[in-house]
Amino acid sequence: MFVQQAIAILDSGVGGLTVAKEVMRQLPREKIIYFGDTARSPYGPRSPEEVTLFTEQIVDYLIQFNPKMIVIACNTATAAALEHIKKKVSIPVIGVIHPGARAAISATKTGRVGVIGTVGTINSGAYITALKELNPVIDVESEACPDFAPLVEKGQFETPEAQLVVEHSLQEMKQHPIDCLILGCTHYPFLKRSIQAVMGPKVKLISSADETAREISTVLYQKGQLARGNEIPIHQFFCSGDSEMFNKIARQWLGEQIELTPIVWQVSTPS
Amino acid sequence: MFVQQAIAILDSGVGGLTVAKEVMRQLPREKIIYFGDTARSPYGPRSPEEVTLFTEQIVDYLIQFNPKMIVIACNTATAAALEHIKKKVSIPVIGVIHPGARAAISATKTGRVGVIGTVGTINSGAYITALKELNPVIDVESEACPDFAPLVEKGQFETPEAQLVVEHSLQEMKQHPIDCLILGCTHYPFLKRSIQAVMGPKVKLISSADETAREISTVLYQKGQLARGNEIPIHQFFCSGDSEMFNKIARQWLGEQIELTPIVWQVSTPS
Repeated sequence: MFVQQAIAILDSGVGGLTVAKEVMRQLPREKIIYFGDTARSPYGPRSPEEVTLFTEQIVDYLIQFNPKMIVIACNTATAAALEHIKKKVSIPVIGVIHPGARAAISATKTGRVGVIGTVGTINSGAYITALKELNPVIDVESEACPDFAPLVEKGQFETPEAQLVVEHSLQEMKQHPIDCLILGCTHYPFLKRSIQAVMGPKVKLISSADETAREISTVLYQKGQLARGNEIPIHQFFCSGDSEMFNKIARQWLGEQIELTPIVWQVSTPS
Repeated sequence: MFVQQAIAILDSGVGGLTVAKEVMRQLPREKIIYFGDTARSPYGPRSPEEVTLFTEQIVDYLIQFNPKMIVIACNTATAAALEHIKKKVSIPVIGVIHPGARAAISATKTGRVGVIGTVGTINSGAYITALKELNPVIDVESEACPDFAPLVEKGQFETPEAQLVVEHSLQEMKQHPIDCLILGCTHYPFLKRSIQAVMGPKVKLISSADETAREISTVLYQKGQLARGNEIPIHQFFCSGDSEMFNKIARQWLGEQIELTPIVWQVSTPS
């Protein structure tokens, strides 16, 4: 029997579900294997070394399923570990930073772009590097929003509290004359409505999640590896920690019954 | 001396300049070598065999410059010759059909997409194939607009006559409940204002030119071949026919002094 090779998607928790959802929408033939490291989330405040170690462990786990591609659907992990993982495995590895950077370069009319992300992502300077690598004259304003991802992991993304946190966190970013804002954390599309309300209708929000789905499509096409046939794929979701909350958020976000397999980590328990 | 490898872009005439312009904007470090086959334009009404032969001849010419990538910036030539050229050369070959299809899949909310192009492109069914390959449930309406490319080649893209032709040609497409319209010919962005006016503000126009520039960026990044350094690239433009009109349109569209080298074809003169 022919077994369709999956796209393996990993994240610190539920954030990568925004990438998974877009892959399901744009590429409904593709099978997804998802891993959310909910036991050790958030990655944002951790050191690059620790994030790299965690990412490597998850990749080792996922590679057992013989996927055709690894997607690091976490900006913090992409900033810390993308180049390392690329050297480690022989299949394509896609991060979420370059797709967002490319989309912003394509969308901006004024050349002034904002980026929000975790402390890890913003401190790494990875977006500035990616944007300037493409276009050296682009003007970038970046700011860490450390409260956003934990809110989403708790399932609080449409509460009045969430709105207050978003409003407070974006006070400074709002002052800059940008025309695009990169949501440089895959958790942030959960808060898109509040972010758009604060930034106003003239600022285009760039979801690194949406853009990554499109780049997955480009790379699979270039390699002749897009899924074929009319088989309906059965996706698999794993998480390392609180499976009840993961399940709840996954169902709410993906709008379908998710089969979840909680797994127990034998290594590096969360600090 | 290190010589930067260029991106080679080819088209039946001036249409590919819409791709070149976007590459210059999104990737200002990249050097471009452009070839417009103005002597044998338009390609739209020609047979796939003839278009394949012409494309192959231009690729043979451009390959002498040792480019790092070939971009077939003509939808008709992409539909007819992409797979053939991919087998022929060892560098990446990018067409303009899949990038447009991917962008439409990403942008549509209703799953109903329109495509306009030359007779050659529409008859090939290449957009329908590309769209359905990604997402089998997408609904596609397509229509040939044979009068558009010749208008643009004559430099008539902002005249009242052009507006009338656009209005007349899109009468049927306007009736379909689509939310995206793919400009499936690289000449059409020249007519974007008129097309948007006819289709109304609710239909998002997808320029295969803009999207191709972004895919060039993705593929060069994945291959580690993006241009580096701060050298300002000197682009080169060649055309096989009326260089005066080509020069005029290129200057108008690219807004800069273009160094043009008209070349004489030794093969297959236009029928």
